[in-house]
Amino acid sequence: MTTRNDCLARDAQDPLAALRDQFDLPPQVIYLDGNSLGARPKAALPRAQQVIAQEWGHDLIRSWNTAGWFDLPKRLGNRLAPLIGADDGEVVVTDTTSVNLFKALAAALHMQAADPARQARRVIVTERSNFPTDIYMAQGLSSWLERGYSVKLVDSVEELPAAIGADTAVVMLTHVNYRTGYQHDMRATSALAHAAGALIVWDLAHSAGAVPVALNDDGADLAVGCTYKYLNGGPGSPAFIWVPRKHQAAFRQPLSGWWGHAAPFAMAPDFAPADGIGRALCGTQPVVSLAMVECGLDVFGQTSMAAIRAKSLALTDLFITLVEQRCADHPLGLVTPREHARRGSQVSFTHPHGYAVMTALIARGVIGDYREPAIMRFGFTPLYSSYADVWDAVEILRDILDRQDYNVDAKRDAVT
Amino acid sequence: MTTRNDCLARDAQDPLAALRDQFDLPPQVIYLDGNSLGARPKAALPRAQQVIAQEWGHDLIRSWNTAGWFDLPKRLGNRLAPLIGADDGEVVVTDTTSVNLFKALAAALHMQAADPARQARRVIVTERSNFPTDIYMAQGLSSWLERGYSVKLVDSVEELPAAIGADTAVVMLTHVNYRTGYQHDMRATSALAHAAGALIVWDLAHSAGAVPVALNDDGADLAVGCTYKYLNGGPGSPAFIWVPRKHQAAFRQPLSGWWGHAAPFAMAPDFAPADGIGRALCGTQPVVSLAMVECGLDVFGQTSMAAIRAKSLALTDLFITLVEQRCADHPLGLVTPREHARRGSQVSFTHPHGYAVMTALIARGVIGDYREPAIMRFGFTPLYSSYADVWDAVEILRDILDRQDYNVDAKRDAVT
Repeated sequence: MTTRNDCLARDAQDPLAALRDQFDLPPQVIYLDGNSLGARPKAALPRAQQVIAQEWGHDLIRSWNTAGWFDLPKRLGNRLAPLIGADDGEVVVTDTTSVNLFKALAAALHMQAADPARQARRVIVTERSNFPTDIYMAQGLSSWLERGYSVKLVDSVEELPAAIGADTAVVMLTHVNYRTGYQHDMRATSALAHAAGALIVWDLAHSAGAVPVALNDDGADLAVGCTYKYLNGGPGSPAFIWVPRKHQAAFRQPLSGWWGHAAPFAMAPDFAPADGIGRALCGTQPVVSLAMVECGLDVFGQTSMAAIRAKSLALTDLFITLVEQRCADHPLGLVTPREHARRGSQVSFTHPHGYAVMTALIARGVIGDYREPAIMRFGFTPLYSSYADVWDAVEILRDILDRQDYNVDAKRDAVT
Repeated sequence: MTTRNDCLARDAQDPLAALRDQFDLPPQVIYLDGNSLGARPKAALPRAQQVIAQEWGHDLIRSWNTAGWFDLPKRLGNRLAPLIGADDGEVVVTDTTSVNLFKALAAALHMQAADPARQARRVIVTERSNFPTDIYMAQGLSSWLERGYSVKLVDSVEELPAAIGADTAVVMLTHVNYRTGYQHDMRATSALAHAAGALIVWDLAHSAGAVPVALNDDGADLAVGCTYKYLNGGPGSPAFIWVPRKHQAAFRQPLSGWWGHAAPFAMAPDFAPADGIGRALCGTQPVVSLAMVECGLDVFGQTSMAAIRAKSLALTDLFITLVEQRCADHPLGLVTPREHARRGSQVSFTHPHGYAVMTALIARGVIGDYREPAIMRFGFTPLYSSYADVWDAVEILRDILDRQDYNVDAKRDAVT
């Protein structure tokens, strides 16, 4: 049986352990919600102070040039690219995941419509269990295009092969499911879509910085993702969009704002898309929130996704094992795949009083979160989560369950 | 003739003079570019520090509830509403001006398409001199809707009445022109659009916080605008969109993300728009950049748009008069209307070497900006611009012109 001392011993040998010191984590908190909002890199505060006091306050409008504000979406995109298997000049950090998904889906439909052999395709295939905003954006886009697009929702991964067919324009999937932690096989599923003549758009919200991603090698077509979860960019920090070089010339999207123009300061009255990834941009970005994204990326620059993945699997394996050993008498159901290749960097358990138990955990300093129905989510962030954290979190969970120390009438807040 | 001492005397009597102390302005700078990037409220730095260190770093995910992050777009919208003649619950601060314009235009087209008497209308009318991104977004939207929408560009305000007709779905205008400072008559032009059966969408990028705006009283249909110019929200701070109560039930927009859902945390697989202004939201917002918007709005809470307007006209009148008196020997051409009702809060002059002269001004600490073709823009922000600033700026301009102390070969940067 594993003991707390075993966990401490593993922490002592953990090659990533020193990185925890680069994050500001409150005392008496075990933070297992980095899959919702990443912790704060210590460097984010001085970086924001520099942008606000010096670049904005002192240098004022000149900072668009002198501080490189205008180039930030591309520069940060190039920093992020290696983490997701993208090349230089293929990623920009900009707008929200929802807005970027709209661009990517619209562009994919446009590419299909431009191909005489594929232009009759009218279906976007996705999962009913996808993060809702992805479905909503697909519904929004398809309902506004009068050619009669529709969104087909499948109820399980097993249904995907049958659902993707001659009418499928685009397959849109979230690589790692936000609720279950299930990780799709990007290479096999991309190949499945392509074999059926469809394009595939991936949402990396729970993948970027969490699991190794190989967009180009695995044959993805377009992708979007989030910087405020595993990438630790800050609350609501701008999202990203990936357009591989092979698709850039054909990439057109309806949010054709001036930042995506070939010559934004020529002030010409007709839109002409920028060459390359720039055409995925739209309007002026929130510089302070954007600049802090770099502080999260800087930490990734000191390790590798392979090292992060190794520790992530070790942490999630340990958590599953300890919960199953030490909370065996309680009605907890593992939702996340045991198979490593199918697992993201979180572990979800159901419990009949999931919301109440999670509320009790949070009150005791173990911060995970709750998702309907009955799911307690625990996110593991190898940059700052320790093996001892896992032990302590399970012990607190066990204590709460053993003593039934939770309020089954707990009412859910608007947002958690 | 006015003297510098006259200007100092006016500053001494200026009821807004004390507000300048609430801004961090660098020494030796006369900042006349608040129409591009507003100066920094001193309160913005501690506010950002609080959000980053305490709300993000310490309270982590809980801040979505405890710090009110989720409500920020609506709460800031309600703070902004009185400045533009909007009511409570009609404005949200979110996304970019370009993206919000896309929503507003799409919603306006949708409203027209839902009316049997108007559904055949296929033209969006705007000005060729409009800020390019507005035109680009209209082009992007109309080219993606297969019903055959087009964008009609008029070359002067005088052409508007003839251009708005039975085929016009929407008139889209920027209230104050970014280049010339020309201010449209919102009431008369809204009535003109309505008389022709069209809806009217206003861009308030150069109006909000700069001139009194009475959206509801003047009969506007929808509006968008910017918070990083006269509202001093910070570089690239999120923009706003106004949907008046009368149009909220009919307002539909294709960027139907989860923040615009009636029950975002129910995680339902079908989009259902929120009641009220919430349906104009889409995705998660950049909290740090968003929170600082409040610091700019706090300053407006200490005065009135009437007081700001009175000083704005006094400053721009003074600038025009002094330039025409003291630089009379030079080929400067006033572009901004002399008529108060038609003037925003900027003054633009052409000069054959406009870019070179502006570069020289900036080097001497007078920060305005340049816009093609040949236009030097000087923005006046009554919250922190003084009458002595006007005097000193004109004296430096006069000196540069008299001595031809500018480099006619100066090459334009990517962004200024």
